[in-house]
Amino acid sequence: MPIRYRLLALSAALVFAPGRSPDPVLRGYDAASSRVEREWEAKLQAIPSPDSLREYMRRLSARPHHLGSPYDRDNAEWILARFRSWGLPAEIESFEVLFPTPRERIVELVGPTRFRATLQEPALAVDPTSGQQREQLPTFNAYSVDGDVTAPLVYVNYGIPADYDSLEALGISVKGAIVIARYGGSWRGIKPKVAGEHGAVGCIIYSDPNDDGYHAGEVYPAGPYRNETGVQRGSVMDMPLHPGDPLTPGVGAVTGAHRLARADATTITKIPVLPISYGDAQPLLAAIRGQPAPRSWQGGLPITYHIGPGPARVHLKVKSDWNMVKLYDVIVRIPGSTAPDEWVIRGNHHDAWVNGAEDPISGQVALMEEARALGDLLRQGWKPRRTIIYAAWDGEEEGLLGSTEWVEAHADELRTKAVAYFNTDSNGRGYLGMGGSHSLERFINEVAHDITDPETGLSAWKRAQARQIQVSSKKERDEARNRGDLRIGALGSGSDFTPFLQHIGIASLNLGYGGEDGGGIYHSVYDDFRWFTMFSDTAFVYGRALAQTVGTGVIRLADAPLLPFEFRNQAETFAGYLDELKTLLKEQQETVRERNQQIEDGVSAAVEDPRRPRSRPDTVEVPPFLNFAPLENAIARLTRSAGRLEELHKRLGDSLSTGIDFARVNGLLIRTERALTDSAGLPNRPWFQHLVYAPGFYTGYGVKTMPGVREAIEERHWDEAQVQIGRVATRLQELAAILDDAGKLLQPRKD
Amino acid sequence: MPIRYRLLALSAALVFAPGRSPDPVLRGYDAASSRVEREWEAKLQAIPSPDSLREYMRRLSARPHHLGSPYDRDNAEWILARFRSWGLPAEIESFEVLFPTPRERIVELVGPTRFRATLQEPALAVDPTSGQQREQLPTFNAYSVDGDVTAPLVYVNYGIPADYDSLEALGISVKGAIVIARYGGSWRGIKPKVAGEHGAVGCIIYSDPNDDGYHAGEVYPAGPYRNETGVQRGSVMDMPLHPGDPLTPGVGAVTGAHRLARADATTITKIPVLPISYGDAQPLLAAIRGQPAPRSWQGGLPITYHIGPGPARVHLKVKSDWNMVKLYDVIVRIPGSTAPDEWVIRGNHHDAWVNGAEDPISGQVALMEEARALGDLLRQGWKPRRTIIYAAWDGEEEGLLGSTEWVEAHADELRTKAVAYFNTDSNGRGYLGMGGSHSLERFINEVAHDITDPETGLSAWKRAQARQIQVSSKKERDEARNRGDLRIGALGSGSDFTPFLQHIGIASLNLGYGGEDGGGIYHSVYDDFRWFTMFSDTAFVYGRALAQTVGTGVIRLADAPLLPFEFRNQAETFAGYLDELKTLLKEQQETVRERNQQIEDGVSAAVEDPRRPRSRPDTVEVPPFLNFAPLENAIARLTRSAGRLEELHKRLGDSLSTGIDFARVNGLLIRTERALTDSAGLPNRPWFQHLVYAPGFYTGYGVKTMPGVREAIEERHWDEAQVQIGRVATRLQELAAILDDAGKLLQPRKD
Repeated sequence: MPIRYRLLALSAALVFAPGRSPDPVLRGYDAASSRVEREWEAKLQAIPSPDSLREYMRRLSARPHHLGSPYDRDNAEWILARFRSWGLPAEIESFEVLFPTPRERIVELVGPTRFRATLQEPALAVDPTSGQQREQLPTFNAYSVDGDVTAPLVYVNYGIPADYDSLEALGISVKGAIVIARYGGSWRGIKPKVAGEHGAVGCIIYSDPNDDGYHAGEVYPAGPYRNETGVQRGSVMDMPLHPGDPLTPGVGAVTGAHRLARADATTITKIPVLPISYGDAQPLLAAIRGQPAPRSWQGGLPITYHIGPGPARVHLKVKSDWNMVKLYDVIVRIPGSTAPDEWVIRGNHHDAWVNGAEDPISGQVALMEEARALGDLLRQGWKPRRTIIYAAWDGEEEGLLGSTEWVEAHADELRTKAVAYFNTDSNGRGYLGMGGSHSLERFINEVAHDITDPETGLSAWKRAQARQIQVSSKKERDEARNRGDLRIGALGSGSDFTPFLQHIGIASLNLGYGGEDGGGIYHSVYDDFRWFTMFSDTAFVYGRALAQTVGTGVIRLADAPLLPFEFRNQAETFAGYLDELKTLLKEQQETVRERNQQIEDGVSAAVEDPRRPRSRPDTVEVPPFLNFAPLENAIARLTRSAGRLEELHKRLGDSLSTGIDFARVNGLLIRTERALTDSAGLPNRPWFQHLVYAPGFYTGYGVKTMPGVREAIEERHWDEAQVQIGRVATRLQELAAILDDAGKLLQPRKD
Repeated sequence: MPIRYRLLALSAALVFAPGRSPDPVLRGYDAASSRVEREWEAKLQAIPSPDSLREYMRRLSARPHHLGSPYDRDNAEWILARFRSWGLPAEIESFEVLFPTPRERIVELVGPTRFRATLQEPALAVDPTSGQQREQLPTFNAYSVDGDVTAPLVYVNYGIPADYDSLEALGISVKGAIVIARYGGSWRGIKPKVAGEHGAVGCIIYSDPNDDGYHAGEVYPAGPYRNETGVQRGSVMDMPLHPGDPLTPGVGAVTGAHRLARADATTITKIPVLPISYGDAQPLLAAIRGQPAPRSWQGGLPITYHIGPGPARVHLKVKSDWNMVKLYDVIVRIPGSTAPDEWVIRGNHHDAWVNGAEDPISGQVALMEEARALGDLLRQGWKPRRTIIYAAWDGEEEGLLGSTEWVEAHADELRTKAVAYFNTDSNGRGYLGMGGSHSLERFINEVAHDITDPETGLSAWKRAQARQIQVSSKKERDEARNRGDLRIGALGSGSDFTPFLQHIGIASLNLGYGGEDGGGIYHSVYDDFRWFTMFSDTAFVYGRALAQTVGTGVIRLADAPLLPFEFRNQAETFAGYLDELKTLLKEQQETVRERNQQIEDGVSAAVEDPRRPRSRPDTVEVPPFLNFAPLENAIARLTRSAGRLEELHKRLGDSLSTGIDFARVNGLLIRTERALTDSAGLPNRPWFQHLVYAPGFYTGYGVKTMPGVREAIEERHWDEAQVQIGRVATRLQELAAILDDAGKLLQPRKD
């Protein structure tokens, strides 16, 4: 499921720092333990091999391996066997989940002309796996409700809330209509959700050639981009409510677990939805009339896009087999030697929509090479201080099923023991993209300094910094040069970190290389071994770099005497979020004030074109001022506490043998990310318990930071916004208190 | 030739003022003369009639009427007869000019596949005049040199200098190639000029469907936008050097005038060039390979646009008959009763590329209704104080031939006598667009207050203000609300004001309504009566509004006892230009510094993609600081002088009978715009003598203000920039001195 996320992360998350030259003493280590650790890391980094990565990918992507398919289970067992062959204790952990697969799919234009969408991705002679049609899932959107509707068609651009605002201004309603939206602008599940909220009875999503087709580049098989038959499959469950099995929210979907009736599941769509190719979309879009769509809504097909409604009428039918299927998470557990109850977890999913060479196998094979390296290190006598868990998740594509059910099943233990979660999903070629919890920002920056970029020989950090300097505006460029640490992006959703970070509150990182290549095979049959080895990381050198990056991160965190969390960057980042919230409110006030004034002064009426009547807008209440003081005070305190803790940390110097109870300090540090959660969760979505990071209710993958406050402001719920300010402030005060406690333990004893 | 200009003017020029409620006493009048004038204006405004406008358009656009065609001359004689029938003294003034028309045109793909462009605009059954093929000019670009070349094809986006910078960064040369550029981004003549400078041997220009075709809206004949066969004809002479007949720069092309040999004419292109439709362009573009073009270069055709060069090879041939033809300017001259040697001039061209209902007839018919109204007023006893000249220009499309030759022929007299020039070209539906000399900004704002917008019943000023408030950013919005006067845009080129304003230095205005409708028939056979009456100002009410606006402006200026120029707005505007120049230099310094730093720090090398090698950039000299003090001092003085003059003007109060010598004051005021010219002209283009307003050397229509300074900075000629600062400063000092002299004459006498 990751590409969209990964690209977002690259554009938003790669903000950086000057030239902190790699400290020979690792953070959380002293000089002696640092030397030892660096030796193990050097050994680890020498192990991953491009040839192994290529052969794993060839095997894992050889046949379609979606959730519930024979090859999915076969892959899980093969991965398990590999783990065991490397001397690692491994098991398969299984869950039973609801997974609809379509029995009937119809998209047809029934008037004024007739056309029936093919809903097929044809085999290509040059691409051997593209013809495995017997095993391929059809093109569909998982967790679409069953439905059979015929209605006028309305083109809604990306189908996000702002597009419906435009439609309202134009006086166009989608009530009773089927909408056709292009992919992009949000996570796909938002489109049927918002369409349904506006009264639409069906939703078609297509891939526009402007976005990942011929206007992005050469199309497959000549080039890497989407051809006219390529379709983006994908889940449309309402994941911003909760991911995981729709029938078992909050609990592991084990045999015998309490399950909701399907009718009571809240994350299945309210209207039927199907994805189509741009080849299938063109006749539908060309048959729409009414107003020409605004300039920015025109896509890449050689037609004038109109909005409708109609006269095009479309028949949309989806009927699925609502099966319960088994998923297979493959779990490695390497017990810690000193702190077995402190867990460092690392995962990537193994299931795909079809063959999935890029998504997810390019990440999965890196994880396997890390695991092989750990097996090697163990044989050479390495003893990780903490417990390390490696996981190959199943059922990610459908809605993070494998990771979510595992996290829910082990929630109590994770709350006590989990130190951090490292996630990858897909991998490409180019610059290191880093997203995650800001308490790990310093840590992952330090790791990136120690990894070599295969194309330039520079450190991965240095190259990411250069990229940031190249592409960003002055302020960000100055930061990239001078801040010390490159900024990491906050995590929204779209991959398996979500249950760890946002349900339990486990500090998480999401990593991957990319930015030098694009493609348009996401979630299609053409995401396969041929595509990846022709167009992406063809030499698997970035696969090796990813294994080196994450492997180093995992063992450095697992071995550190003192956990290397850092909170000044975190406090500064949170202060930035507060500024954003204040700016958001201010801009909303100004926008509404200006809009009201234009209505009252007659400006809106004066500019009207009598040939294009629009609905006359009404004035609305200007947003009130909110009391941000609780958050301001909390952030001020957090900043002080973080600064004090860092001072004490520095005073420890190069030797950690000062009689300090590091176990107790680490016990406190593990709780710091948990402090940001609240068991009551976010408004209307209690599963999401992290009060600082969440996927947006109306963006899906895109992050909303301090989401309770931010979304309340965006949706004009002023009382709610005030309540949420208080809740976030309380969590930040709690975090500051933990830092103060940790600081007391770090004070040099007088005796 | 106007549409591009007009649209630019609408987006850039409509910046405005609060609610200066129309003063009952007109500027330059006293209470009594104001009352009389307002009565004449009311009578004038009652005269123009939509039915007349429609019938004139039907007649004038009935057949193709380009320069040199039988119907062009026929139209001129018909217009002359109309003027005379309204009692106006009118004559035809004729010039003889070089006008090539093509005998042979070939654009063909000769490899790797073959395709021959049709170079035709087919007749449409629903459109009666589209089939007048015997009389239509073929699709071509006037003043392309003859040529016959076969070469690899390179796609150069819009073909403007910035695009060649991108090509250079990609390591792609057009040397020896034929380039294909899309229309837009600059005036069309820039494209072959820049291509030639970079070594190309031929140039093809096509209309991309993203710009004025199907992605802009419904295509003709169902809608107003360009269909796949529509071609934009147009001149490609190097007008930024000089407009007018290429053989007689600076002098009127009368019989017996000294003429250059054609080989010595500098404004004929250096390489052959032809325009094509997007239907003809698609096979050519689809045959180009090499690197896919950058995302922003992808147009609206359903292909991946590549840059090349080749493998597509194209054969381009243009061979013209280089004929001398006669042009027919129709000139009305109404002698002034009091000040016959002060001329108010108003013009619109009558020639078209084909039938030209919109361009230029929609403007020409308004001019005719104004003339009819003046005839009526004269019969009712109105006696204009000053001489009024109305002109229907010929040969505008080829390069402002009719206006330029007339201005050059009468240059001496114009320098002494011309008060102002009012220009229109095409007219549409919507908001009043005003561009011109800033000494007339206050004046034309006051006129706009007195015109009724036909769709809303508001004043044209009020509606333009509302539009400005609606579309602009905060700063401009605040200005539109509070400044008093809406800002008018500076004039570049693209219509007949150029010789008046930029060669002689006559204060000019360019006016038109638009912004509510778009279209894509510009310079094609489909710009005809059917198109205009189906899609544009179908009821001719904006045609009437334009006649009322310009007619009112003309008589108000012709009758004013004291010329209503205003110089505080002008000084403030010029101060803004100075700020822009300083910002331009500062931004260039920062850009170069940053670029150099990225090269020196290795950032540029670090981000390179080994699969896409680019030429390694070199560091360049950081722009030096320039001495802006001469300009700063001149503008400070001009601001003081303008303020003082305005104070004195106000002190005159409601009665002008104070024994002041208004004739002498007016004589000085007439010289104010001339003061901004310098007979040595701009660097490398002495014909352009205005040192504040000029079309850009590399934009063509787009204005460059203080062009000598601005273009020297843009082109990194630092010594030149310093010299030009001094020249502009000298002109502004001279202007201030004239204002001071006028001020002395306005001092109340002691006796």
